[in-house]
Amino acid sequence: MTDMRQTPLAQSLPASVPFVGPETHERARGAPFVARLGANENIFGPSPKAVAAMADSAGEIWKYGDAESHALRQALSDLHGIAPEHIMVGEGIDGLLGYLVRLYVGVGDAVVTSLGAYPTFNYHVAGFGGILHTVPYRDDHEDIAALFAKAHEVKAKLVYLANPDNPMGSWHRGADIVAALDDLPADSLLVLDEAYVECAPDGTAAPVAIDDSRVIRMRTLSKAYGMAGARVGYAMGATDVISGFNKVRNHFGMNRCAQIGATAAILDREWLAQVQGEITVAREDIARIARSQGLTPLPSAANFVAVDCGADGAFAKAVLDELVARGIFVRMPFAAPQNRCIRISCGPKTDRDAFAAALPEALAAARAQASR
Amino acid sequence: MTDMRQTPLAQSLPASVPFVGPETHERARGAPFVARLGANENIFGPSPKAVAAMADSAGEIWKYGDAESHALRQALSDLHGIAPEHIMVGEGIDGLLGYLVRLYVGVGDAVVTSLGAYPTFNYHVAGFGGILHTVPYRDDHEDIAALFAKAHEVKAKLVYLANPDNPMGSWHRGADIVAALDDLPADSLLVLDEAYVECAPDGTAAPVAIDDSRVIRMRTLSKAYGMAGARVGYAMGATDVISGFNKVRNHFGMNRCAQIGATAAILDREWLAQVQGEITVAREDIARIARSQGLTPLPSAANFVAVDCGADGAFAKAVLDELVARGIFVRMPFAAPQNRCIRISCGPKTDRDAFAAALPEALAAARAQASR
Repeated sequence: MTDMRQTPLAQSLPASVPFVGPETHERARGAPFVARLGANENIFGPSPKAVAAMADSAGEIWKYGDAESHALRQALSDLHGIAPEHIMVGEGIDGLLGYLVRLYVGVGDAVVTSLGAYPTFNYHVAGFGGILHTVPYRDDHEDIAALFAKAHEVKAKLVYLANPDNPMGSWHRGADIVAALDDLPADSLLVLDEAYVECAPDGTAAPVAIDDSRVIRMRTLSKAYGMAGARVGYAMGATDVISGFNKVRNHFGMNRCAQIGATAAILDREWLAQVQGEITVAREDIARIARSQGLTPLPSAANFVAVDCGADGAFAKAVLDELVARGIFVRMPFAAPQNRCIRISCGPKTDRDAFAAALPEALAAARAQASR
Repeated sequence: MTDMRQTPLAQSLPASVPFVGPETHERARGAPFVARLGANENIFGPSPKAVAAMADSAGEIWKYGDAESHALRQALSDLHGIAPEHIMVGEGIDGLLGYLVRLYVGVGDAVVTSLGAYPTFNYHVAGFGGILHTVPYRDDHEDIAALFAKAHEVKAKLVYLANPDNPMGSWHRGADIVAALDDLPADSLLVLDEAYVECAPDGTAAPVAIDDSRVIRMRTLSKAYGMAGARVGYAMGATDVISGFNKVRNHFGMNRCAQIGATAAILDREWLAQVQGEITVAREDIARIARSQGLTPLPSAANFVAVDCGADGAFAKAVLDELVARGIFVRMPFAAPQNRCIRISCGPKTDRDAFAAALPEALAAARAQASR
């Protein structure tokens, strides 16, 4: 029941929970998953130095976190060779996206994204009363020219582009994105979500000039750094864009141990390199498993592989359901035609073996349903 | 510089950072504080079982937290004897207050609070374009009758009441708050912030019927439970109020280790009782130290003591600055006449001894300034 004292906008929002996590599935099925390959978590885990730093600092949790995330921003400043004023740390990219939409999108304002791209961004846009305009993927890639053309057409406040893309794993060269910025409307801000960029080939990160106010880049500790549960993300951009967060953010919102662990994780380049190698191996193995069953893995620059199940969304959904029923947690794109795929996160060999064992049965069961 | 692509509301918000944390002070002064008694943190710390649970789970931080905070809500459900549907867990009371203001307060909507009460609530109200109306404290207590009368006068969407109060430490009997609810306007929602209630005498927690939609109660792991840096708070209320959070909250916003640690902390009633005892001793000791210097400690039901410095806000500010200069981090109320006080958080004996040692010098220095 909706509380009629809420604002008209809040009353208009759906009360249903849009995001179902693996624990919710597990409680419903009454058993834990055998392999947790659905949320693009990094099962190879965080740097042992980050784990040790968090464990060692747990006793200090009585202190609020540093409102400026000073040490972490300093480490990021050194990593990227930009001044700390160009960096904002927040409660994951999800948290930062919420603040950013709030800063730029009022009721009725236009926003542009790709049809089937990151749903949490769409959730924030709807939540602040924005009007979402979508353009289709083009050959399973986000279509930069079409996104920017749509932004002109609808006078978009924000344009969302993930590179590499989730859920497809496709990517653009960073230089191509920078070159396209001249086609972005002057009143639009490009939200470039580079959550998966550490999993991508060299040249994927966009070489944006740090004082370029046309774009804000988002990074996270949740993917290659293996700290999804810590809720640490950061934004990089021009100071007039970055400083806006201070108007609305929860200044003491960061978990103190997460700040400390994230700083250690950023500094451990050796661990990151090792995980990057593991992810490459895992992508190839997932592709091999998919091909062995006659499916088509898509090229991926992320820590997951989208696998084309060779038919429509209903069939892919049947495959997914049959995998979940066998204890393999995977997810899938929600919009056609990308929803002909299922999306499998990279994990260690034991997880991939469990997937490989379940896939033939799941496919057979889905095909049996389809032929009924 | 303000980014002119922001919404009109966002452009109107101050870009200055309203909340300065102790680490920022420490970096400015080039040395750590001797005693950290300014942020109402609980220096006695969290349950060792909570610390162990967080340390043990640090290696699992690659997993997102449970979007439903199921185990923690179950523990809270058992503790309070209410169904989990009446409980929402969020990123500290600060985070929950942000969501709540967003749900209920549109641009131009009226909100009522006490003049000098919790500034983060005011920050959220301003951030969503609400109009804050204030009523004075009455004998250093929040004035419930005046708050509710003002709510009628201005047609308030939200009325904020902290019990015990921060920054004064004063309190009302919970039963008196419940009795007063009949005077609350039908269209208002009372936000009853019980952050410090575990530090208060029996009978301070308001015995609100759980299906009473007139009030939402806020609790936290940051104070008596000693986990400020974890960012765990919760709200209790009628389901139509509680379910509203699902429309706007960051569903995967909770730190996973914090969820696990908070659950352990809630279950460790023995540790809480011990800390409650320590806080009582510390309050009495802080009062004794204040009296020994001719100052007047106010009665407190919180984990801090407001100390009347016997003059105006300028004098109290001078005392505070002199304490800070001597490595004693304290804060003070920001509105008259409460700003005749400084506010000292409860800490162990070593911290109190450091405060006791610094106070005579700080007072002498402040008095020397005042006589110039």
